[in-house]
Amino acid sequence: MSASLRGLLFPQSVVMIGASPTPGKITHTVFANLTAFSGRLYAVNPRYREVLGRPCFPRVEDLPEPVDLAVVMIPAEQVVEALESCGRKGIGHVIVVSAGFREAGGEGAEREGRLVAVARDYGIRLLGPNTFGVVSPRVGLNTTFAPRGALPGAIAFLTQSGAFGSAVLDWAWQEKLGFSAFVALGNKALLDESDFLPLLAEDPETRVIAAYLEGLKDGARFVRLAREVTRQKPVVVLKAGRGVAGKRATLSHTGTLAGEERAYRGALRQAGVLQARTVEELFDWAYVLSHQPLPAGKRLAIVSNAGGPGVIAADTAEEEGLEVVDFSPATEGKLARTLPPMASARNPVDILGDASAERFQKTLDLVLADPQVDMAVCLSAPHPILTYAQLAAITAQAFAQHGKPMAASFMTGDLGEEAKATLRARGIPAFFDPGRAVRALAGLARYAQLRNQSPEAPRTFAVDRDRAHQVLAHGGVLGLEALALLQAYGIPVAQGKLVSSPAQARRWAVQLGRPVALKIVSSAAVHKTEAGAVRLGVPPEAVAEEAQALLEGFKVRFPGAPVEGLYVQELLSPGREVILGLTRDPTFGPLVMVGLGGIHVEVLGDVAFALAPVSAREALDLLQNLKAFPLLGGVRGEKPVDLQALAEAMERLGQLALDFPQIQELDINPLFAYPTGIVAADVRVRLG
Amino acid sequence: MSASLRGLLFPQSVVMIGASPTPGKITHTVFANLTAFSGRLYAVNPRYREVLGRPCFPRVEDLPEPVDLAVVMIPAEQVVEALESCGRKGIGHVIVVSAGFREAGGEGAEREGRLVAVARDYGIRLLGPNTFGVVSPRVGLNTTFAPRGALPGAIAFLTQSGAFGSAVLDWAWQEKLGFSAFVALGNKALLDESDFLPLLAEDPETRVIAAYLEGLKDGARFVRLAREVTRQKPVVVLKAGRGVAGKRATLSHTGTLAGEERAYRGALRQAGVLQARTVEELFDWAYVLSHQPLPAGKRLAIVSNAGGPGVIAADTAEEEGLEVVDFSPATEGKLARTLPPMASARNPVDILGDASAERFQKTLDLVLADPQVDMAVCLSAPHPILTYAQLAAITAQAFAQHGKPMAASFMTGDLGEEAKATLRARGIPAFFDPGRAVRALAGLARYAQLRNQSPEAPRTFAVDRDRAHQVLAHGGVLGLEALALLQAYGIPVAQGKLVSSPAQARRWAVQLGRPVALKIVSSAAVHKTEAGAVRLGVPPEAVAEEAQALLEGFKVRFPGAPVEGLYVQELLSPGREVILGLTRDPTFGPLVMVGLGGIHVEVLGDVAFALAPVSAREALDLLQNLKAFPLLGGVRGEKPVDLQALAEAMERLGQLALDFPQIQELDINPLFAYPTGIVAADVRVRLG
Repeated sequence: MSASLRGLLFPQSVVMIGASPTPGKITHTVFANLTAFSGRLYAVNPRYREVLGRPCFPRVEDLPEPVDLAVVMIPAEQVVEALESCGRKGIGHVIVVSAGFREAGGEGAEREGRLVAVARDYGIRLLGPNTFGVVSPRVGLNTTFAPRGALPGAIAFLTQSGAFGSAVLDWAWQEKLGFSAFVALGNKALLDESDFLPLLAEDPETRVIAAYLEGLKDGARFVRLAREVTRQKPVVVLKAGRGVAGKRATLSHTGTLAGEERAYRGALRQAGVLQARTVEELFDWAYVLSHQPLPAGKRLAIVSNAGGPGVIAADTAEEEGLEVVDFSPATEGKLARTLPPMASARNPVDILGDASAERFQKTLDLVLADPQVDMAVCLSAPHPILTYAQLAAITAQAFAQHGKPMAASFMTGDLGEEAKATLRARGIPAFFDPGRAVRALAGLARYAQLRNQSPEAPRTFAVDRDRAHQVLAHGGVLGLEALALLQAYGIPVAQGKLVSSPAQARRWAVQLGRPVALKIVSSAAVHKTEAGAVRLGVPPEAVAEEAQALLEGFKVRFPGAPVEGLYVQELLSPGREVILGLTRDPTFGPLVMVGLGGIHVEVLGDVAFALAPVSAREALDLLQNLKAFPLLGGVRGEKPVDLQALAEAMERLGQLALDFPQIQELDINPLFAYPTGIVAADVRVRLG
Repeated sequence: MSASLRGLLFPQSVVMIGASPTPGKITHTVFANLTAFSGRLYAVNPRYREVLGRPCFPRVEDLPEPVDLAVVMIPAEQVVEALESCGRKGIGHVIVVSAGFREAGGEGAEREGRLVAVARDYGIRLLGPNTFGVVSPRVGLNTTFAPRGALPGAIAFLTQSGAFGSAVLDWAWQEKLGFSAFVALGNKALLDESDFLPLLAEDPETRVIAAYLEGLKDGARFVRLAREVTRQKPVVVLKAGRGVAGKRATLSHTGTLAGEERAYRGALRQAGVLQARTVEELFDWAYVLSHQPLPAGKRLAIVSNAGGPGVIAADTAEEEGLEVVDFSPATEGKLARTLPPMASARNPVDILGDASAERFQKTLDLVLADPQVDMAVCLSAPHPILTYAQLAAITAQAFAQHGKPMAASFMTGDLGEEAKATLRARGIPAFFDPGRAVRALAGLARYAQLRNQSPEAPRTFAVDRDRAHQVLAHGGVLGLEALALLQAYGIPVAQGKLVSSPAQARRWAVQLGRPVALKIVSSAAVHKTEAGAVRLGVPPEAVAEEAQALLEGFKVRFPGAPVEGLYVQELLSPGREVILGLTRDPTFGPLVMVGLGGIHVEVLGDVAFALAPVSAREALDLLQNLKAFPLLGGVRGEKPVDLQALAEAMERLGQLALDFPQIQELDINPLFAYPTGIVAADVRVRLG
């Protein structure tokens, strides 16, 4: 697929269907932009023989060659027919700019269906419809109405919003930011974000893939592909449509069903994708990732001619998970000898307001030479002794010499504009806000950390699928009886038995020889504790009597409620209560969920998701990302719970989800985690 | 005090001690800046008779008048003497720019002490030492080395970092942002941030007070003053030095001990101060608060020619607590009739990419006229049909006409620079990032909400101070016996008695006639449960025996540990566990703390602080700001706990803290909260 998309971004011949010679018409603007294309360009329009000096043909059939790419910009009603002509002519790539399809609802949706059918019939790689188009600076291709296209560069940008894309193109000129490719995805009727990943991963000029997305067409496929790509080059995504109101806008915009925010967060994380929080961050990260080497770690040096900005930078570093590292004693000694007595030789280094360019240079050299330091920010407030042009030259030189990532905060207005531009031209981001400089480097460090992880395939465990089949044969909603399902998949469960009478319960308990828990199995008592359907710690000899009392009490409270039986279970010693679950997301497919029991899941919403299958590292990572993780990792001198066992249970759940697509939802609640081992105490399964 | 500071910011005559006629010297730069001063200007320097055309005198004594303000810029060793001369001459305001004081440590600290003593002796209002200086555009005063001073405007800016201040001045020229006053606080030896609040509150040209602070010199005083000021005009603070590494930089910078982040957050909140999260936010909020009316509520309309940016804006609104409001049916109907069929007439309004300026105008008029709408953002991506100059004019007109707050996101580069400048000149912030436009309005809405609250004085309760005195007479560390202290202050406590023998314990329990809890009182068992020093639910008749067993077990585990007695307490029914506390902060003085029991305080750090005294609304506000508040407010159909009783207990604790300064720390842990009422079960008090 990736090779087959080359013709879309790097064609040698292009036709525009609907080109117009009339200034003021948008079909003229687009064709005018296309005239900059380095290859052969044609127009199709029955009313003209020539448009802007290029040959124009009445019909696609009349073209002298089956061009690589057709750009279609005609009324929606005529598009399907035009696509058929392209197919017959052997044109492999078509961009449908025209609107009036799915986004218009009703008839439009049906029209889009026909469009896709035609594209499939002829094997046409179709971008759009309703797309702003593509810009490919390497071949001078600009199929959009944006007047200037884009500068060549190392960022490939995919956008689900054409408007956002057009804004980015314009802004990029001001910032002198270049692109290796720019693709507006439109309605994603056929080609979507995932299709472009392999091509861009292979493309030697693309160093970063950045994307603005409102949803993913096929979440699981995106994660699978992105996981591969992010091992080679960074992918940064701004995912909009997170809030409730935001979601509504997405719906009315492109008809995309925005997925659950948490599912997206988990999936993008798993795919190694950096999720930007703001528009600014999307491009700050894309810039720094496309211009700088990766840091060896997250240890930051801060050099400043001003204490205040140093404080802001250090604060931000802390928030972003960077380490404001202690320099080696040797470096600190050298700094102390080099700097005036009132300067601070410790990180953040305050070289004082009267610092000359030379003092900046010496300090940057010393800290960047320290093996403890992975990257540096250079901060500067205005002072008469210093010109920003000098400081920019010094910063750029230090960057070139030490090969460690750097960002700058020149806290000035127009005094420093030119210096900032100089820095950016040398690959060093420069902002007013010291915090923003630190956040840019934090993106770099985050990707470096991802990249350093060795790839790890999810494990496949030997399980008892036949037994699982038997349990699931019941269909509908399963309760405690589904503990056998977990057991079949190697997840430790509490010993227990479903019985039909107090006498049977007693026999089982006596056999066990220890106090038990008694639980009424009834569809009327989903939350057993709240329904008063549980007695804990019943000695074996008292089981028959207590079971009888439990049943009678239940019948009084829920008259006529069905009672499917009584579950007798070994009494578990209290451990940390964990909830493990499975769900199926419309975008991502099967997801494994983890959270802590009690209020953590229900009230605080402290849960994390990952796509199945889950690798061991991903499972551990998920646990560590819970806010309440300290409860599992050991607090107040307590021993940590068996994290390996918990993680393995998540891996096994992932395998279960893939093996049995009929499992719609599954909740293990509670699962007790101990310093050695885990035990599932209750489960609910909904089958589809 | 406020009147007495006028001479510092609005003097009629100024002298610079240390002025130099030699270009290149910083004492020349500053005096050159001073020549723009609108009043009478003199120099003092024994080496010259004239500096830059202004009369220069050998000594302060020789000045023809006791000027309003002296700016001192001479070697540190000579400053104290110069200040004495000023004092003798009757100069009331002095800015000491010279460094070499507390920030230099050792001798410098001692020198600063002498400086303060002289200032106090003569009643001099001293700014600095080690300050960048002040800029007062109204009188053309610029005592800093910043070349251009500042434009006049409505923002008063206080900065603890001179470097940050100089950066802001430079940047403000580019942004055409004006100031009513600019003050760098320096070492705050005498005058600090609080001193300027009353003057700036009264100043008719100051509409917003903005500040960059690393710490507060007297937190309680600042809160007291700011609380008054924020009822009249907004105060926005960027508080740096939050993280651990940041804190270190602050220490080496100005020697300020940065307070605990949570204490600052609570205190600033209580004072009605908006706490900015970034440098960008500090000035975005200052700008919008100084240029726009306050919104009636938090209901936002989003108008966009592009779906994607609308989604980003709606997402941000959600995150920032604004409401993406549903329009009235009338407005929605009118919009539907006005807009093309494919547009979205619901909020966020998508008026489509081909929207003309006229369509923007009609839409803005309709949504701003809707009484449901408190404010609006206008978003626009580039499109050939639209010029940004037109759109800027329309946006400004809508703002002027409807009198509701507005912000713009013109998502362009240089295409829209001029339009953005036009908007800013009209008081409308304009950014690339739609999220940033929304965040600016969110600051406005947050202040409007604060302003709408009617002032509320903390209540004073009738308490039994004599009883409290008796309890505290013990000194040292108090445990359960201090429940009597709480009782004296009207906080409900569990019934109980400290006894010295199992037999006494039994007598008390029998008298109570209900099961009790037995607790060993011992300095060796601070955490009673962990130490096995507690038995719960002991029936009265079994008390003597159980107490005996408890004591014996304790002696086995803690051989030789002192046992001060046995506490017999009524057995409380389980409720929500809450921790209430008091602590004394070096910056803020007495603080009341609240958090939920169990892991919430210790592991999740989910606590909130307020300065004592605490008003009823502040106490409730504090509770509502806990992440775990839903647990108190009622979840899963549970009844909420008695929030009024909890809040009142916090008010009473605040009163206790003020009445007894010897209480260093106090923890009520646990305090049980029920749907009706609360009961304190245990307490620890440390006296100083």
